[in-house]
Amino acid sequence: MDYQKLLENIYQEILPYAKEGKQANYIPELAKVNPDQFGMFIHSIYGETASIEQADTRFSIQSISKVFALAMCLSIKGDDLWKRVGREPSGTAFNSLIQLEVEHGIPRNPFINAGALVMADILFSHLDDPANDFLNFVRAVANNPTIEYNRDVANSERENGYLNAAIANLLKYHGTIENDIESVLNFYFLMCSIEMSCRELSLAFLAFANHRRKFDYAGISLTASQVKRINAIMQTCGFYDEAGEFAYFVGLPGKSGVGGGIVAIHPLQYSVAVWSPRLNSKGNSVMGMKALELLTTETKESIF
Amino acid sequence: MDYQKLLENIYQEILPYAKEGKQANYIPELAKVNPDQFGMFIHSIYGETASIEQADTRFSIQSISKVFALAMCLSIKGDDLWKRVGREPSGTAFNSLIQLEVEHGIPRNPFINAGALVMADILFSHLDDPANDFLNFVRAVANNPTIEYNRDVANSERENGYLNAAIANLLKYHGTIENDIESVLNFYFLMCSIEMSCRELSLAFLAFANHRRKFDYAGISLTASQVKRINAIMQTCGFYDEAGEFAYFVGLPGKSGVGGGIVAIHPLQYSVAVWSPRLNSKGNSVMGMKALELLTTETKESIF
Amino acid sequence: MDYQKLLENIYQEILPYAKEGKQANYIPELAKVNPDQFGMFIHSIYGETASIEQADTRFSIQSISKVFALAMCLSIKGDDLWKRVGREPSGTAFNSLIQLEVEHGIPRNPFINAGALVMADILFSHLDDPANDFLNFVRAVANNPTIEYNRDVANSERENGYLNAAIANLLKYHGTIENDIESVLNFYFLMCSIEMSCRELSLAFLAFANHRRKFDYAGISLTASQVKRINAIMQTCGFYDEAGEFAYFVGLPGKSGVGGGIVAIHPLQYSVAVWSPRLNSKGNSVMGMKALELLTTETKESIF
Amino acid sequence: MDYQKLLENIYQEILPYAKEGKQANYIPELAKVNPDQFGMFIHSIYGETASIEQADTRFSIQSISKVFALAMCLSIKGDDLWKRVGREPSGTAFNSLIQLEVEHGIPRNPFINAGALVMADILFSHLDDPANDFLNFVRAVANNPTIEYNRDVANSERENGYLNAAIANLLKYHGTIENDIESVLNFYFLMCSIEMSCRELSLAFLAFANHRRKFDYAGISLTASQVKRINAIMQTCGFYDEAGEFAYFVGLPGKSGVGGGIVAIHPLQYSVAVWSPRLNSKGNSVMGMKALELLTTETKESIF
Repeated sequence: MDYQKLLENIYQEILPYAKEGKQANYIPELAKVNPDQFGMFIHSIYGETASIEQADTRFSIQSISKVFALAMCLSIKGDDLWKRVGREPSGTAFNSLIQLEVEHGIPRNPFINAGALVMADILFSHLDDPANDFLNFVRAVANNPTIEYNRDVANSERENGYLNAAIANLLKYHGTIENDIESVLNFYFLMCSIEMSCRELSLAFLAFANHRRKFDYAGISLTASQVKRINAIMQTCGFYDEAGEFAYFVGLPGKSGVGGGIVAIHPLQYSVAVWSPRLNSKGNSVMGMKALELLTTETKESIF
Repeated sequence: MDYQKLLENIYQEILPYAKEGKQANYIPELAKVNPDQFGMFIHSIYGETASIEQADTRFSIQSISKVFALAMCLSIKGDDLWKRVGREPSGTAFNSLIQLEVEHGIPRNPFINAGALVMADILFSHLDDPANDFLNFVRAVANNPTIEYNRDVANSERENGYLNAAIANLLKYHGTIENDIESVLNFYFLMCSIEMSCRELSLAFLAFANHRRKFDYAGISLTASQVKRINAIMQTCGFYDEAGEFAYFVGLPGKSGVGGGIVAIHPLQYSVAVWSPRLNSKGNSVMGMKALELLTTETKESIF
Repeated sequence: MDYQKLLENIYQEILPYAKEGKQANYIPELAKVNPDQFGMFIHSIYGETASIEQADTRFSIQSISKVFALAMCLSIKGDDLWKRVGREPSGTAFNSLIQLEVEHGIPRNPFINAGALVMADILFSHLDDPANDFLNFVRAVANNPTIEYNRDVANSERENGYLNAAIANLLKYHGTIENDIESVLNFYFLMCSIEMSCRELSLAFLAFANHRRKFDYAGISLTASQVKRINAIMQTCGFYDEAGEFAYFVGLPGKSGVGGGIVAIHPLQYSVAVWSPRLNSKGNSVMGMKALELLTTETKESIF
Repeated sequence: MDYQKLLENIYQEILPYAKEGKQANYIPELAKVNPDQFGMFIHSIYGETASIEQADTRFSIQSISKVFALAMCLSIKGDDLWKRVGREPSGTAFNSLIQLEVEHGIPRNPFINAGALVMADILFSHLDDPANDFLNFVRAVANNPTIEYNRDVANSERENGYLNAAIANLLKYHGTIENDIESVLNFYFLMCSIEMSCRELSLAFLAFANHRRKFDYAGISLTASQVKRINAIMQTCGFYDEAGEFAYFVGLPGKSGVGGGIVAIHPLQYSVAVWSPRLNSKGNSVMGMKALELLTTETKESIF
């Protein structure tokens, strides 16, 4: 497979969508990013790589960090994790309080904000130094010690994070989180603020794509079965209320973030990351979604 | 792979669950079936087969018929189908009216009852002889002219089908179905009443598992891409509000029915059908779920 | 109190609203009524009366008939009625299926459609000749043997009554109604189709306004306490999701119908009926609401 | 009317219910109150009074304070108040976040917690010294300078007030409150912590019962029409999701609090306060509800 040629073709085809969609503006720091950027990087499990445009520009990975958090939580808690969070698609917008109230404080899955706050609470309880330990894990998976949080973005989100604060208070009311709300929120927003490039994300997610390789990084280890189950949750819950759409048009497990990044994996084949800040109405990158749809259309290969 | 040995091992392991769960009792005709039965049949795309226990006993396939209906609708309407039904997981029980009312009469996906009623309406409008044409299509896919409806089951369901009648009336109110309610309901229940054995179902679903083979049966043809998209919808929506659970533990696209049947496919590998009438609280066969979980655990292969 | 002068002043003040709002158009027969009509009639418990404009034109009383049904049900079942229907305001639109599903088939109150269908079912079970007995009761309360159903309106509603049919099926599914769905729906729509003028309605509702007088008509008798409780339900539930608005601006118990009629009572003072077919977005007569607001503003008397 | 005799009879009749219900326990300070207490005080607009048992024991008036807040807000903002809060019954539990999310941050009415938080925000913006000004207003209405906040109760509530904090954050997210969340929550809980006896509450609420008297206290003035509208809101929204029940059995406008107090008024007749800490499942005082039901049954007079 000539991946480089493939990415170049994809890029030509998605150029007409370059001005579609709107950048997330509820986080002032994120709104400062130049919206007219696009990057893509693919990394096969055999070591082939290809990249195009701003594949080396770092951006805020935001909710993509929830996959790293899930890996840590599953390693630490095992199946006990599922006592405090579900693993079913939510069927509603990613920040909905309704389901949480109806289901008495148990979030539908780890990738809606409520679920990620529960994971932040678990990590905050179990890690010696939560901020450092989480960053070190991501650095280890990505094999890159230069990855950093962006504390300006984290602070910017925290200051305007009323909806997440509402969710955290509701979780606390139902007893689903143990630590004080401020600590959980601060740690949550810090995790979301990690900055990585497409190249770095793509490399890091090889750990999920290639579950034949031992998953053991910075003391966090998972069985092959656990890795596959994380992939299953990416498939069913990775795109908020557009999970079905992504399965239908792309057909790969993946995870998106409001910074405009999307990472997807073809198990035992490759890991791919795209980034472009303009989002569709569901909060997913317009050019990113298109690029991934073309990727599986052109290669004629998806998990289905 | 010694599939026969595999199935025998699986059967031994699931025997302790033989008395768990309860048969569906809201359809009097179905409640008459002996609940203590189990069958399983696997069919690889290379022609290998294996079977165990009552793999040749026919049972009511119920909601599994919705996959056949989707294949027909997608062939007939193409992407216009998605104007009248969504393709997102529902996140609520399969018969919920709430989502339908909130979303103004557009069902979340084709596999919840509301979505299947819309498909029944589409087929009723487009087929010359709906009952015969649908049966002939299923017979063609299964390569078996002896497959039949069970009109006693269909009538039994119709007489007690108040919830489906409520849904049909709500769809009619919102203008999502065109034909008169009685015709749509009768045709819907008739489709659900088809009886097939595990062997027959497994063979029929090879058409979805092997999308390299041309899909063209009784005038209904689909592209490889369309077949893969049906598989994607089975993956995200095939198990009501247990879709995430099935993805997590089994990791294959599939579809279940309240008759106790489940069919699943490993694209480009095999198609498998299990049947056992006792259901868990979500309406899926207890032994069937366990058997499929063991299948992908033992083979160490799923789509993830 | 010079009621005649009062009504004339009110009429002048509401004339600017004569073209506001839209006639109900989901019932074809009702849509044929000339929308530019207005009538009002007031009847004090001391026998004073006043009328203005089309106070003698009969119109379809629609949901106002639910008050008569409630009087009959309370007389027949006593407090057992409340096992099958609640008496709390609904907080949502009058035809919402959501609350009904969440609350397992027990309607919030007798004046939402679901509640009225339950009353229709109760009356259908207990009356020897439901259609005649109900009409005779209304004639007796109104002291007027010429009151009639309009079967064209009833049939027109029945043919298009998909939402009510959805509700009836859902009630049947939950076991809240006993009789067959067609009988209940037909009887329900027949009750709604009664035609009365403002004069006739105003006179009939004196039976509720003047609870010092014995309530005993055509074999249906209520205690003073029961009459007051019907008034309480009119107050809290009589205007769908505009009950608070009516309490706030008018301050009287009352009941509206989509035919454009509204009846209100000032206990131990008067009964008043208004009618004008143009409705606001909540389904209540625009001129009718204004007229009643002015009535309690000008008289400086409400129940508060 | 011999009110004293009446209250004594009522007390005898409700004694069998003295151990029914449970004290609110989510506010530790309130849980310390001896639950086996009962007080009742009635005050007619002509100056007659009667009292029984602990009518002079002060208790935490909690949500009853919302009526005082509404009086202040309506005086300050006039009808502009209704741009930020509705006046319809909620139909769901008093602390539900669901309606708030569905209705984009506009609370249903001023008496659910969300609505009261909006009022706290308004008062916090408009009053020079919110805590003092609110207390002075209540003291003026009650004609009693010794009324005080209980800051231990306020602090106790604040520390455990996760659900109210969730609501406040959601309101802030939707832009319905202007001030910082901590200030609004602290002021809200302070208002709720006011302590008054039945005698004091009964006297204070004469201001609402007797709208012929000028409403003008500590600079807060209302027209007779505004007072009547506050009464209307008490009627439709004063008892959370038991508003219909209270209208049905008691038939008076009123307001309850989780401290076990209830105040009710018969416009132009009397004001009555009862108190007993044991609550029913809806959060209203068991003995209090019974006592008021007997009051209107025995006097044969309600607003209906």
